[in-house]
Amino acid sequence: MTATAQQLEFLKNSIRSVQDYPKPGILFRDVTSLMEDPQAYALSIELLVGHYKNAGIARVVGTEARGFLFGAPVALGLGVGFVPVRKPGKLPRETIAESYALEYGTDRLEMHVDAIRPGDKVLVVDDLLATGGTIEATVKLIRRLGGEVSDAAFMINLFDLGGEQRLAKQGVTCFSLVDFPGH
Amino acid sequence: MTATAQQLEFLKNSIRSVQDYPKPGILFRDVTSLMEDPQAYALSIELLVGHYKNAGIARVVGTEARGFLFGAPVALGLGVGFVPVRKPGKLPRETIAESYALEYGTDRLEMHVDAIRPGDKVLVVDDLLATGGTIEATVKLIRRLGGEVSDAAFMINLFDLGGEQRLAKQGVTCFSLVDFPGH
Repeated sequence: MTATAQQLEFLKNSIRSVQDYPKPGILFRDVTSLMEDPQAYALSIELLVGHYKNAGIARVVGTEARGFLFGAPVALGLGVGFVPVRKPGKLPRETIAESYALEYGTDRLEMHVDAIRPGDKVLVVDDLLATGGTIEATVKLIRRLGGEVSDAAFMINLFDLGGEQRLAKQGVTCFSLVDFPGH
Repeated sequence: MTATAQQLEFLKNSIRSVQDYPKPGILFRDVTSLMEDPQAYALSIELLVGHYKNAGIARVVGTEARGFLFGAPVALGLGVGFVPVRKPGKLPRETIAESYALEYGTDRLEMHVDAIRPGDKVLVVDDLLATGGTIEATVKLIRRLGGEVSDAAFMINLFDLGGEQRLAKQGVTCFSLVDFPGH
């Protein structure tokens, strides 16, 4: 299923823009308004699932917390398992971790060591692509466990923040339903 | 659709028990292993959706972060909007907040003020019911916005921790797929 221009316009209009969040000068793209609209939310998942239906995906990985809201339904739609990537200390079994840079300092993401089977073709799903730091860290976690990852899917791509180019250097192709400028 | 004993046993077996997490003496019930199994995850959502299909639910509310993993698919399955309840500062628009007691100290949950329409029949979904503190706070948020809430659904009920009784006092009936002792 390929999206029509009308469908994509409908999705774009269902995303609210919030001025000065999380800090002055930032125009935040808010997916909670999209999820409140059952038609918009269902269409988003349907289009993401449709894009990867015949891609041989074996696992979907989503990052805490908004990545769960798109990754889990996409995994269910594809009929494959869902693997959460979480902040430190939130996963109960043995984990591996990757650090990534924030504007000031670093943060860390963790994944269960047995969540990926070697050779699994893994799709990464998140709500929004900005600079791509958390997704790059997630790709590294998957590859350290022997998973193959060549695709990442997003509801929104802030297209001028370089995320797509950064992930392309890691051999990851991005797909997004809606694009906004990030500046 | 009512679950068979065999289905519920399958779901129960798909949940791993982790000794001494998050601290010594605690036996943690881990739903990540269930989500890695696409049959178990899909069946869980199907059974939860089936239970509320004809209940006139207008909104599903789920709490950060594991509540998103069950609440969002249940909302999609029921064809209604999904509303996230989040930790302080994570929601971009105007919010209301409720505090709840932790073992030591308190924590706070927030919800967008326009996420519930007065009179909406709201279902609360979470992965696990323990003492019911976060769910009680969530129920209060929904009612402050004029929503009606009489039901809460869980993948797991730690049946001897008093959550069900605590929520019954608030007029909320609990439904869970799998029960474990919490001690």
